[in-house]
Amino acid sequence: MELTTIPDGGVTSAKGFMAGGIASGYHSDSDRMDLALVESREPCCVAGVFTQSEFAAAPVQLNRTNLGSLGASVAKAVVINSGCANAATGPKGLENAKEERHIAADAIQCTDDDVLIASTGQIGQQLNLDQFRNSLPQLHKKITSDTKGGHEAALAIMTTDRHPKEYAVKYFDDDINTEITVGGMVKGAGMIMPNMATMIAVITTDLSLAQTAAHQALVDAVNQSFNKVSVDSDTSTNDTCILMASGEACEDYSYPIALNSPSYKRFCEALNKVTQELAKDIAGDGEGSTRMITVNVSGAETEEDADKAARAVANSPLVQTAVAGKDDNWGVIVAALGKSQAKFSQENVDLSLLGIPMLVGGMPVDYDKADVTKAYENFEVPIDINLHEGNAKTTIWSCDLTCDYVHLNGAYQA
Amino acid sequence: MELTTIPDGGVTSAKGFMAGGIASGYHSDSDRMDLALVESREPCCVAGVFTQSEFAAAPVQLNRTNLGSLGASVAKAVVINSGCANAATGPKGLENAKEERHIAADAIQCTDDDVLIASTGQIGQQLNLDQFRNSLPQLHKKITSDTKGGHEAALAIMTTDRHPKEYAVKYFDDDINTEITVGGMVKGAGMIMPNMATMIAVITTDLSLAQTAAHQALVDAVNQSFNKVSVDSDTSTNDTCILMASGEACEDYSYPIALNSPSYKRFCEALNKVTQELAKDIAGDGEGSTRMITVNVSGAETEEDADKAARAVANSPLVQTAVAGKDDNWGVIVAALGKSQAKFSQENVDLSLLGIPMLVGGMPVDYDKADVTKAYENFEVPIDINLHEGNAKTTIWSCDLTCDYVHLNGAYQA
Repeated sequence: MELTTIPDGGVTSAKGFMAGGIASGYHSDSDRMDLALVESREPCCVAGVFTQSEFAAAPVQLNRTNLGSLGASVAKAVVINSGCANAATGPKGLENAKEERHIAADAIQCTDDDVLIASTGQIGQQLNLDQFRNSLPQLHKKITSDTKGGHEAALAIMTTDRHPKEYAVKYFDDDINTEITVGGMVKGAGMIMPNMATMIAVITTDLSLAQTAAHQALVDAVNQSFNKVSVDSDTSTNDTCILMASGEACEDYSYPIALNSPSYKRFCEALNKVTQELAKDIAGDGEGSTRMITVNVSGAETEEDADKAARAVANSPLVQTAVAGKDDNWGVIVAALGKSQAKFSQENVDLSLLGIPMLVGGMPVDYDKADVTKAYENFEVPIDINLHEGNAKTTIWSCDLTCDYVHLNGAYQA
Repeated sequence: MELTTIPDGGVTSAKGFMAGGIASGYHSDSDRMDLALVESREPCCVAGVFTQSEFAAAPVQLNRTNLGSLGASVAKAVVINSGCANAATGPKGLENAKEERHIAADAIQCTDDDVLIASTGQIGQQLNLDQFRNSLPQLHKKITSDTKGGHEAALAIMTTDRHPKEYAVKYFDDDINTEITVGGMVKGAGMIMPNMATMIAVITTDLSLAQTAAHQALVDAVNQSFNKVSVDSDTSTNDTCILMASGEACEDYSYPIALNSPSYKRFCEALNKVTQELAKDIAGDGEGSTRMITVNVSGAETEEDADKAARAVANSPLVQTAVAGKDDNWGVIVAALGKSQAKFSQENVDLSLLGIPMLVGGMPVDYDKADVTKAYENFEVPIDINLHEGNAKTTIWSCDLTCDYVHLNGAYQA
């Protein structure tokens, strides 16, 4: 199947969606947008996956109830604020989340249940509902279905992200004789080792999807993308990934696509592409980072072993600081691998850094330092490990650990 | 039981031990000591615990074989070099380790099996055996049983440690009517989340100990001390902790102390004190650190839950950088706790930072920022968490994460 990347594509690329952002006044710099709205023309199929944190934020708790045991339902809009996470805020936080949703429903003219919400920012702070009361009606009026609307929304959800993150593809589904678009936006930066979802992502498509299909496709896509990113091994209280399927590309085909149908598989391929591109964009834009680290583990006995090994390396502060310093101290990779609890024998392990073999069959091999220096000119730093135990493999995306990370997080509130 | 700290105490405080350090020429700065020897006057009871890393270094592999399934045996000396870890060095590394041991045995005039060895430093480099050939006979001649000898050994095992780490206590055992001394040295700094042992530690006592008792006491002490330290969640390939028991305080009591006897319990108390003080010294001297973080978790349902919760907080780069920035952004502690997989309900959790309550029953409470600023003047930063699920509790020691950590590890080889 041919997937075509849509230039400047994002959350409004698929038919039937409008989006926008506004400065609601959370940030002292009052021009900075901090409130985003993604709205479907009609109530549509939505699915969500959320953080596994026991300290799940109030908006996450509310969405979970809303989407029920299926993890999917019908809704019309997603409201996202950046600055205040509404996490660790107790019963008052949950009341505020409900009121935020009600304010949005009033502005949009839909029921409360038709609104999903997400928050990102500082933990332990109560929402200021006036921001929503003052800004949501205005935001609802200004949302657009063009590129600008999607871009504004992507800007408004940023916290310490250095750039907005959007991506979209289109493909042709022969079975239903229709061009389908899948696009999305995400915010990342810090506290990124998602478990079941990333910080905040909204994905839209104009395919018509059954709720079970929407949820399963999203769970699978998240596992192959956002859950493979690790910036600092810290999982957020607010991780949220929402998929909205308008069905507006399928006017002549009203029956929604079911799980495991050929059209479902095509959609999954496109969805995986979008979520993986967004996930890599998160890794490459980790707080303070200068380089993306791609840890490829192959030859593992099981997928779990591959995951343990790759994650141990990707999360190792010693590996991350070595890459920040453009160092070829591959011993730290070996140490991370050693503690991973993945099954292997050290005498079999092959290891390359930057494509340069450094350990073959557990023995150090000579290499040219000049090759290392040259390879470090690239943004992407591949680490390839073969455990020679079996056929399972995985890739985890991470980034380097720099002083800027330390500074950013040493004065988050300032 | 009264434990008396011995001023300037260390590995030579107990009777029957000599120690020293020498510059064998590993470091370009040729005056820097890099080779240490701790020697018992007579072959004595020794026990060891080692890294759980699958990439266990050659000296660790050799010691394991030497100590056998009991984890204890009889030996006369421990040789430690800093600079080259002899890890990830394949069969040649193991041959070199054997040759190093043989060189030492020749110098000391004992059998190869009477020598334990430990290495710390860069991974993936082969030992330069000439350093050992040239320096060990000289080092053997200069070791002393006074404070200076112990201090030299503690200096010689340092890598990025900012100060040598030594501690010793004495106590009186009524049952055997003898004053007993327990002392030790350790090196720490980076790659510190020991699993079964810390980087390199040698503990000596003049009590007479059965081998089973020596090993069990050491395992228990390590679990309550070095295994509770986490600087950066990275476990080394070389973690080694060795206990030597000369029995020289017990001339009139030749029968070695057995497991679980009253004298054993007294010894364990003293050993725990020594290993805990050394462990805290490691945490407080983590690479680039400016503060020690003490994470106390209480009210957990099980010890495993307490450990998961405390370790998640202690290992969180976001928590560690917040402390580096003297920040009161306690939300990062909540986030770390949320991802810990420890059992709790967020609405019950109490959290204090620097002794100042910030979250009570899952709700944020007001506090005075001036109190935070004042409390950050102290070196130790306590984080107290009550999960209100049961009676299990634990303490994990960690440190803050600063730019100096990033710089140190970004150019480890430079």
